[in-house]
Amino acid sequence: MGNTLIIEKTDQAISLLKEYDYDMWITFARERSVTPDPILDYIFEDNLTWKSAIIITKGGDKIAIVGSLDAEAIERRGVYEVVPYIKSFKEPFIKYLKKISPNSILINYSKDSPIADGLTHGMYLNLMDAIKEAGFEKNVISSERLISSLLGRKTETEIKLVKAAINETLKIFDEVTEFLKEGISEKEVAEFVKSKVKERGFGYAWEEEMCPAVFAGPQTGGAHSGPTDKKIKKGEVVNMDFGIKLDGYVSDLQRTWYILKDDENDDPEPVKKAFKVLIESVEKAAAALKAGVKGIEIDTIAREHIVKNGYPEYPHALGHQVGRNAHDGAALLAPAWERYGNLPYLPIEENMLFTIEPRIPVEDYGVVTVEDIVKVKRDGVEFLSPPQKEIILVRG
Amino acid sequence: MGNTLIIEKTDQAISLLKEYDYDMWITFARERSVTPDPILDYIFEDNLTWKSAIIITKGGDKIAIVGSLDAEAIERRGVYEVVPYIKSFKEPFIKYLKKISPNSILINYSKDSPIADGLTHGMYLNLMDAIKEAGFEKNVISSERLISSLLGRKTETEIKLVKAAINETLKIFDEVTEFLKEGISEKEVAEFVKSKVKERGFGYAWEEEMCPAVFAGPQTGGAHSGPTDKKIKKGEVVNMDFGIKLDGYVSDLQRTWYILKDDENDDPEPVKKAFKVLIESVEKAAAALKAGVKGIEIDTIAREHIVKNGYPEYPHALGHQVGRNAHDGAALLAPAWERYGNLPYLPIEENMLFTIEPRIPVEDYGVVTVEDIVKVKRDGVEFLSPPQKEIILVRG
Repeated sequence: MGNTLIIEKTDQAISLLKEYDYDMWITFARERSVTPDPILDYIFEDNLTWKSAIIITKGGDKIAIVGSLDAEAIERRGVYEVVPYIKSFKEPFIKYLKKISPNSILINYSKDSPIADGLTHGMYLNLMDAIKEAGFEKNVISSERLISSLLGRKTETEIKLVKAAINETLKIFDEVTEFLKEGISEKEVAEFVKSKVKERGFGYAWEEEMCPAVFAGPQTGGAHSGPTDKKIKKGEVVNMDFGIKLDGYVSDLQRTWYILKDDENDDPEPVKKAFKVLIESVEKAAAALKAGVKGIEIDTIAREHIVKNGYPEYPHALGHQVGRNAHDGAALLAPAWERYGNLPYLPIEENMLFTIEPRIPVEDYGVVTVEDIVKVKRDGVEFLSPPQKEIILVRG
Repeated sequence: MGNTLIIEKTDQAISLLKEYDYDMWITFARERSVTPDPILDYIFEDNLTWKSAIIITKGGDKIAIVGSLDAEAIERRGVYEVVPYIKSFKEPFIKYLKKISPNSILINYSKDSPIADGLTHGMYLNLMDAIKEAGFEKNVISSERLISSLLGRKTETEIKLVKAAINETLKIFDEVTEFLKEGISEKEVAEFVKSKVKERGFGYAWEEEMCPAVFAGPQTGGAHSGPTDKKIKKGEVVNMDFGIKLDGYVSDLQRTWYILKDDENDDPEPVKKAFKVLIESVEKAAAALKAGVKGIEIDTIAREHIVKNGYPEYPHALGHQVGRNAHDGAALLAPAWERYGNLPYLPIEENMLFTIEPRIPVEDYGVVTVEDIVKVKRDGVEFLSPPQKEIILVRG
């Protein structure tokens, strides 16, 4: 599977270089296990120990200039043409640059997009030394645009993989519904989920300590904290943020439950009202999302609907892309806050996969949240997960 | 355990800032799961989503300026004082800089040392924007020297953890000795080792695909390739490069076996001679290694002994440090090759843990290698693993 995907994505990179008229893209890395450039996961499978240039060109070259001891494994894959070196990286690299004589050289740095910012600063200095020696330092630009499209435009294979991870996550949510009851702690719920993950051989979509995140009752902390010893009570809301990694691709979903009091058959009015506004905000955002719009427009729709109804705005973006990482790609459904840089303004493209995840705190009850994943189409979206429309009532 | 180590290492960082008279060390990071700065593993346990400054000062401050949703988990640990922000990182960061008014600000970039080069170039640009706004851009320098000492000078707790990983690795080598026989493939040997790793709940010291690396018979490829379908033959040498991760710390060891022919009771003369030269090169290097020498001196001793005896020099460094990573710390026992930059010239310090791992190819038989780990002392070294002195003979 790995190899199919690598070939798909490197071929897609060549198409994008042509589409955007860029000559060359260099991923420059060393000690992959110590300072991994996250883009390598999409385009390159093997270990890199010394200074290595993974080069893809508009002309269709796929070249790996690597330390000699890394060469054989790469050659065996047959995806890249390997140029091994023993003592000095510079010599074969400069020779190759001069052969191609590129007008544009994309390198992986970005002030705003973490996934397009895998080149470390020390390695940037090393790379620029070599590029200057070859005489092309004026042609260096950020690969942000290329990477945004390469990661954003998911192939059919990638969409299938995310769907598979979503389906397994939904099964676990169903099991959580059966498991929830008064008196068990957030940590115990998390342990239950982890036992399922382990039993089925899945990975986690993000740091295991916060995957799942479980919140029982009214919250003082935020959406990224790990589960605590706090116990579930009747008459309170429980929500969970959780995703798995399966065959290299992840899910990222949230669900909300209400633990009924003994004399209740439904959730109380304040919870009901907030959840209704929450779902409306998702529906309105989803209805406006399509290729060509900007993320900030979509975030604004959901955010304004929530604020207009008297609730505080959520302290984060409405949605992010998913793929190999839970926070994948570059373009975001986010407000114009400094911390999001230019990401809310990047163009939304077909086959991008976005989460939609507003949240509303309900005083005395807890936080209601949902998070589902949509695929962007030319004229709208398709939900890859059947979206939560009703709070899940638990007789706890 | 985690927390003890984090407190030990952050306290050690404060001592080193005092010793070297540096005012402030900033680790600047975001989306830790996407672009992890490897130094964070030593000084910081929690998730970081938005632009985050993990700051340690000569005055003893440990400050985390982080996005609001990451704050609670960090506060709960009690190691760092947390300054949360919602919309903009710059404001609290600049305010803190002005308060400290540092003459020196260490940031994590290095042309030569991967572990000291965790700051990505885009994040470097963001950080410099903020530091310029505060008026301290002239005081920025590389944290390479601090990190080299912080990672190099292992605490007692860290040495115990590496020893534990070594001991478990040695047990697996003993099991491999029992398992090896004619007709099984490199891959089957690797699978056997992996089954032990899995059964015992260990992690891998490096990329699982090449951990262990197994080489049967004469080699065309290099030491970093994964195992193949090549089958073990009588009358050939087998070697393995393998390490585990246990409680966050790793081992990295190599052993060499000889598969006896039916009519043999000992390894043949060419293997015996090469192995003897190999062990002598280890002994000579170990005898010279102590605090205060430079890595290049030690590499030269081993390299020259091998070449003087008519064998080709090994195409890599004699040794690297181990710790949380198989290639840990900065200082290397390495030759003056461009790919190693300044690392062979960094001072060797007490309590650094080094591998010693020469290799000699023996025509028609295979490659003989050993790799053991030593702790540097003021006047010499102590082997943390009992070093291999004899080739292991297998009746296959």
